[in-house]
Amino acid sequence: MSMNNLGIVRRRIERADPAAVEQLSRFGVATIHEAMGRVGLMKPTIRPIYQGAHVCGTAVTVLLQPGDNWMLHVAAEQLRDGDVVVAACTTDSEDGYFGDLLATSFRARGGRGLIIDGGVRDVKDLTAMQFPVFSRAINARGTVKATLGSVNIPVVCAGALVNPGDVVIADDDGVVVVPAAIARQAADAAAAREANEADKRKRLAAGELGLDMYRMREPLEKAGLKYID
Amino acid sequence: MSMNNLGIVRRRIERADPAAVEQLSRFGVATIHEAMGRVGLMKPTIRPIYQGAHVCGTAVTVLLQPGDNWMLHVAAEQLRDGDVVVAACTTDSEDGYFGDLLATSFRARGGRGLIIDGGVRDVKDLTAMQFPVFSRAINARGTVKATLGSVNIPVVCAGALVNPGDVVIADDDGVVVVPAAIARQAADAAAAREANEADKRKRLAAGELGLDMYRMREPLEKAGLKYID
Amino acid sequence: MSMNNLGIVRRRIERADPAAVEQLSRFGVATIHEAMGRVGLMKPTIRPIYQGAHVCGTAVTVLLQPGDNWMLHVAAEQLRDGDVVVAACTTDSEDGYFGDLLATSFRARGGRGLIIDGGVRDVKDLTAMQFPVFSRAINARGTVKATLGSVNIPVVCAGALVNPGDVVIADDDGVVVVPAAIARQAADAAAAREANEADKRKRLAAGELGLDMYRMREPLEKAGLKYID
Amino acid sequence: MSMNNLGIVRRRIERADPAAVEQLSRFGVATIHEAMGRVGLMKPTIRPIYQGAHVCGTAVTVLLQPGDNWMLHVAAEQLRDGDVVVAACTTDSEDGYFGDLLATSFRARGGRGLIIDGGVRDVKDLTAMQFPVFSRAINARGTVKATLGSVNIPVVCAGALVNPGDVVIADDDGVVVVPAAIARQAADAAAAREANEADKRKRLAAGELGLDMYRMREPLEKAGLKYID
Amino acid sequence: MSMNNLGIVRRRIERADPAAVEQLSRFGVATIHEAMGRVGLMKPTIRPIYQGAHVCGTAVTVLLQPGDNWMLHVAAEQLRDGDVVVAACTTDSEDGYFGDLLATSFRARGGRGLIIDGGVRDVKDLTAMQFPVFSRAINARGTVKATLGSVNIPVVCAGALVNPGDVVIADDDGVVVVPAAIARQAADAAAAREANEADKRKRLAAGELGLDMYRMREPLEKAGLKYID
Amino acid sequence: MSMNNLGIVRRRIERADPAAVEQLSRFGVATIHEAMGRVGLMKPTIRPIYQGAHVCGTAVTVLLQPGDNWMLHVAAEQLRDGDVVVAACTTDSEDGYFGDLLATSFRARGGRGLIIDGGVRDVKDLTAMQFPVFSRAINARGTVKATLGSVNIPVVCAGALVNPGDVVIADDDGVVVVPAAIARQAADAAAAREANEADKRKRLAAGELGLDMYRMREPLEKAGLKYID
Repeated sequence: MSMNNLGIVRRRIERADPAAVEQLSRFGVATIHEAMGRVGLMKPTIRPIYQGAHVCGTAVTVLLQPGDNWMLHVAAEQLRDGDVVVAACTTDSEDGYFGDLLATSFRARGGRGLIIDGGVRDVKDLTAMQFPVFSRAINARGTVKATLGSVNIPVVCAGALVNPGDVVIADDDGVVVVPAAIARQAADAAAAREANEADKRKRLAAGELGLDMYRMREPLEKAGLKYID
Repeated sequence: MSMNNLGIVRRRIERADPAAVEQLSRFGVATIHEAMGRVGLMKPTIRPIYQGAHVCGTAVTVLLQPGDNWMLHVAAEQLRDGDVVVAACTTDSEDGYFGDLLATSFRARGGRGLIIDGGVRDVKDLTAMQFPVFSRAINARGTVKATLGSVNIPVVCAGALVNPGDVVIADDDGVVVVPAAIARQAADAAAAREANEADKRKRLAAGELGLDMYRMREPLEKAGLKYID
Repeated sequence: MSMNNLGIVRRRIERADPAAVEQLSRFGVATIHEAMGRVGLMKPTIRPIYQGAHVCGTAVTVLLQPGDNWMLHVAAEQLRDGDVVVAACTTDSEDGYFGDLLATSFRARGGRGLIIDGGVRDVKDLTAMQFPVFSRAINARGTVKATLGSVNIPVVCAGALVNPGDVVIADDDGVVVVPAAIARQAADAAAAREANEADKRKRLAAGELGLDMYRMREPLEKAGLKYID
Repeated sequence: MSMNNLGIVRRRIERADPAAVEQLSRFGVATIHEAMGRVGLMKPTIRPIYQGAHVCGTAVTVLLQPGDNWMLHVAAEQLRDGDVVVAACTTDSEDGYFGDLLATSFRARGGRGLIIDGGVRDVKDLTAMQFPVFSRAINARGTVKATLGSVNIPVVCAGALVNPGDVVIADDDGVVVVPAAIARQAADAAAAREANEADKRKRLAAGELGLDMYRMREPLEKAGLKYID
Repeated sequence: MSMNNLGIVRRRIERADPAAVEQLSRFGVATIHEAMGRVGLMKPTIRPIYQGAHVCGTAVTVLLQPGDNWMLHVAAEQLRDGDVVVAACTTDSEDGYFGDLLATSFRARGGRGLIIDGGVRDVKDLTAMQFPVFSRAINARGTVKATLGSVNIPVVCAGALVNPGDVVIADDDGVVVVPAAIARQAADAAAAREANEADKRKRLAAGELGLDMYRMREPLEKAGLKYID
Repeated sequence: MSMNNLGIVRRRIERADPAAVEQLSRFGVATIHEAMGRVGLMKPTIRPIYQGAHVCGTAVTVLLQPGDNWMLHVAAEQLRDGDVVVAACTTDSEDGYFGDLLATSFRARGGRGLIIDGGVRDVKDLTAMQFPVFSRAINARGTVKATLGSVNIPVVCAGALVNPGDVVIADDDGVVVVPAAIARQAADAAAAREANEADKRKRLAAGELGLDMYRMREPLEKAGLKYID
């Protein structure tokens, strides 16, 4: 085992089963996160750059150095149709690593979107392109191309571990990572959860209380809840 | 006096006079806050989840435990038409306590909106429903139902003291709390202030300076202001 | 040299060449910042209050005291057509220093917009007016008129030094300051850069890689990048 | 009821029973907070300015305006032996409201310490004086004396409601507020809790597990905890 | 592969080679981080609770739920001599999960210290015990014991991936994680780096410039650095 | 005028009058800031790395690139006895730019301390050396030497404009910058202020109220302050 995983580009990665990815693309981030047992979320500091942005695809991971976007250019070559770039940084940084030129390149190579624990710019153009970007900041600050990071190594992005090939789903509620090995299982669980919710919504809309629907009254009483008039 | 106010649901609360609530609903948060003598605001960390969200109603207060939304279900039963749920937490937390199912339930019970010093999710659905929510964060992170908080006790929400029954008004500028006992007085003061503003706006639009309109030249000179060419 | 620069209004300032300002108004903030050699940006904490806000003009600078907007009224009188007010504060503060009345006054006097390292309110009205405001916060909290600051002295606003008369450009990506003396030079450099970008965009859209277009392969190899299958 | 509570000094306040205050002074903040049922804490943003600072006394409350420490001078006159000044601000501010001169004055009038949701300065002198100060920031920035706040009205300080006369206890762990009416009850509960802890500490030091001492094994198993080899 | 890794306690973990741990304990965090190629650090938000705290040991990992310290009690049983508890949380939280009782228990079971991406309390006692704790916050806020997390699963703590058995070193400069498999290699590299530094320190102390010692003049000139008189 | 001020080292700078520097070194930061009319402070995010750190000297300024400390080595050569390095960065960054080796070098060249809007490491060694460092963060994260910044150009450091040769004074309360041209004037004003304070301290210690000493009663009454029994 080598000590250092900087300066590496892994060309062959195991991408999650396309059918599972497709299935997962139908569900929201909150639903998938709940279906997985309430794990897998990035921190809520990662936000869409325009309302309604949504993406689901397989992760090509990038480890950036602060103020340096060299590795995003390296990553572009590794993209296949259906990939989403997930970019972490070796340190907290909000510089503008990404703009409309890189988005054009990513899209031309099959890239569906970007999740980045850093800043991006050209948001007007990116919005016009409807290229879904989820970032920590919007920042016009430019970057250099001087120091090596890596592509397709495991990264920690906004608090979540992402392995290359994992499924990444992002929408207005946040970003969730589904390990490739359990993509199908997570999709099934999400489907089950969603089916369940439609009925609940109807009953709640009719005025039924969650207290009754979820049978909470007894456990609340047991926990000692007191009603006072 | 009991030491502990956790695990309590107060069923009967004194709601502010409906006529005063209706009157207050016509004014913006900034106007009401000024009319009250520049007090009553929550911190600006509480933001609408969609542009143009606006709500005015009587507070049903909730004290949540971190990562636990049990009390929101308990609160649903206490809602009456025209109420707004105001949810504080015993500690700083940005988990996603609220989504479209609870919004459906609140609305079915007469709830007009939610102010929460925490996170919410399903923002796409909430926006589609036009259910006004003002929160500290958007976060897909789910919660448990395990520990008691309280409903309809006085709470400190985002730095503002809120008593059950107080009037809460929220718009793009923030959230203001009007104690029930002075709701009418505040509404009258807001009306007076707004009437006053229309004329000022016209004069300023015509090029008159605030320096002259507000007679600031003399106090500025007294304070020592120096003009240099 | 006087020790104190508080309590001063400078009436005569050297505004940047109008032709250069006009030329700069055609470019985005990121482009201008890059063209200047990656300097001149304010911190990304300054954000537009509505999507699509854009302004380019000559700075009338204001130094505010915390919770006190007196100097904005003083500044209104110093505005000429094409000016943008740039307001810094002697300390970090997010109070609501500015609203639709001051915007009405600024516009009537020729003001094109506001950049403020503080809070603003009446965002619904400001949006309806399409008066471009870039601020650190949205906050209904009102201010007093009690303590002197200054107008048209050099200020540090959100980390950037701004001299009265400098060109300030702001859009969705942030805010950049161009010293008056190099406005023309910066505009030319921005134009050169933008011309260059159109061609790059086309090539990237056709699938050419940045790795090849920017000739990065050799320097990457020299730096030690390793490809692993 | 008057709408406005700014510009008011309440001279007569109900201070908590001195015996209860004395009793509470023997316990740490964490113990008292737990004994009260896990409520009453200020946010952890309030920190001691020197290690080992500790204070317990009855609150004289102050509501400050941003960047303005006028009301601290007004408060000095209201101090009695054993009081602690609790200063909130109408808005978030970290200016330096307090230094060694005010500390000298407070001490001369019987004041035992200061809790302030703002900044302080002269920390070297305050440390030398061993005058316990708990603040949100250390900041050399000075303040003006221009706008009225209030003394001895209920304030929200760092998220906690404080009424004049309440007991305030602060140590390295934070700040807790005990309403005057339950001071005795809280002191008794704290004493009971502390007695209990000595025995626990001995058993844990001897290697007994909390799992056994607190009988957690059964509830953990019920909750579904699985041990894997 | 199971989808869910909550509610699990792994009893058998592969701890790093004790000799390598011992060797690593002689070096500072900055040295080890550099020796590993500038990776492995937690975010600088994790700070020692007292000056001079230092710990080096093998990780027993814990995944906590917000406001719930149940799993720390579960972890105590899994400790062996030389272990350090590394506690992450499923969400950002600064509650006080740990105090002197748990420290007493950890120490009695062989635990050498705690790294926690959350809050702790009883800092006076912990300091007196000289029990090294590195945390995100100091907070008197108590926690409940209601919801399952896990022990000895891989966790992301303050941005760093930690596997059970990894070496964790913490001092005044921060926290670094060394994967068990490369502990020896990292220790050797740290030793080499440190040997190298002693000589450099001497030369620099004698007035030699880094510019000369590191032969920077040529690359600086190549990069275009200009000296102006 | 050149557009770009990156990649420049200015060798000859106008340092403030040594006698004025010596005089200023006797006063605290708060006193000097007040004496200058309440201006010149850096943001309170800059803190000493050890208690009691104090420095006063003439600024050698540095503009760093994110994650890159090359220019600190370049700056070392420009130091003269009595200088203090003031390092700003082109973007917000908390990496560890400085440690004990650079401190050794700075001291050997006459440097008295460091003010940096970034991170530093080796704090244990720096403390042992009693080398005064004031920084935004403590961070073991290392940096590269790849991109040019500048030395001895005007910089904005933590919100304050610093010109090379200005006097910089830092202590437990923060950091203040005195322009070289007014160093003597500021020192005189500080001396006058301090003389004044000794008498005030004595009167306040004797129980006299600030209300009387500063003659505040009349202006408070005029402002509308009301005493209630």
